[in-house]
Amino acid sequence: MKKLQETPSRHIIAVLVDNEFGVLARVIGLFSGRGYNIESLTVAEVASEKAESLSRITIVTSGSAKIINQIKALLNRLVPVHEVRDMTDEGEFVERELALIKVVGSGEKRVEVLRMAEIFRARVVDATPKSFVFEITGQPHKLDSFIDLMKPLGLIELSRTGVTAISRGMEKIGD
Amino acid sequence: MKKLQETPSRHIIAVLVDNEFGVLARVIGLFSGRGYNIESLTVAEVASEKAESLSRITIVTSGSAKIINQIKALLNRLVPVHEVRDMTDEGEFVERELALIKVVGSGEKRVEVLRMAEIFRARVVDATPKSFVFEITGQPHKLDSFIDLMKPLGLIELSRTGVTAISRGMEKIGD
Repeated sequence: MKKLQETPSRHIIAVLVDNEFGVLARVIGLFSGRGYNIESLTVAEVASEKAESLSRITIVTSGSAKIINQIKALLNRLVPVHEVRDMTDEGEFVERELALIKVVGSGEKRVEVLRMAEIFRARVVDATPKSFVFEITGQPHKLDSFIDLMKPLGLIELSRTGVTAISRGMEKIGD
Repeated sequence: MKKLQETPSRHIIAVLVDNEFGVLARVIGLFSGRGYNIESLTVAEVASEKAESLSRITIVTSGSAKIINQIKALLNRLVPVHEVRDMTDEGEFVERELALIKVVGSGEKRVEVLRMAEIFRARVVDATPKSFVFEITGQPHKLDSFIDLMKPLGLIELSRTGVTAISRGMEKIGD
């Protein structure tokens, strides 16, 4: 009997690495070399209790359980990698993204833009008589909804960070 | 006479690329292959007026004017790159980052944590009797200040997106 094809599912993977030259290229090379998809990627230095300098990379990817396990195994084998954590598999977590959105328009459209921004709790970070730049944070689907609403109202430019995530409760990476 | 060594300066570079396989690896390979530093990197899909799917990569790097110019020239030569813009060189812009910060503690420390969070407009996104997860947005130095304040008060985990940026006013990338 043929085994049913597994549906690919979305995973958020946090990788703690030495903040040293070329690590990011190696982590990404591991994905691109094998045809694994990267939906979004964020990286920044994080505080460390020991004096060493660490970076935390958050990658959103999707694949079958087999592919996700392979990705994690490969990441764990990279020398500058301290820890690999699949947020999606380990209980509850908070997932957030930030977007900067530029909307140009006047008259009634401008009023509607501000009304929608208020509903979505988007903050005005720049304004001219004919334009706004909004900052909005939330889960990606919330940002998608706001962006879709802004498109017919004059959205002309958009920049998103991609997702970062942290587990709920008291647990920490490294436990 | 010896020419004075130029001081390296921090640049935020936005790169608009086709959202296709392997582009991110090529962009990062361009930096790591030449020893150019990446301070932070964010990437996410952005809406496009034409139907094509585009990603916007924001890279924070630092180097002399010569190195920065070389980086931009190399990026412009990559085929899937639509546009390269040095935000730092082109007038005013808004720069934002998001961080998720987990703080564990009780008693007076917990009260102090909440007081500081209020001052920095950090939002509670998860709470237990002994822990908080905060979401904070702002320029990186604002996030740094909040993180430094939280360290002695029980910071145990931190995840940052890195920087995303957009120009002020009505101008858009692509003009």
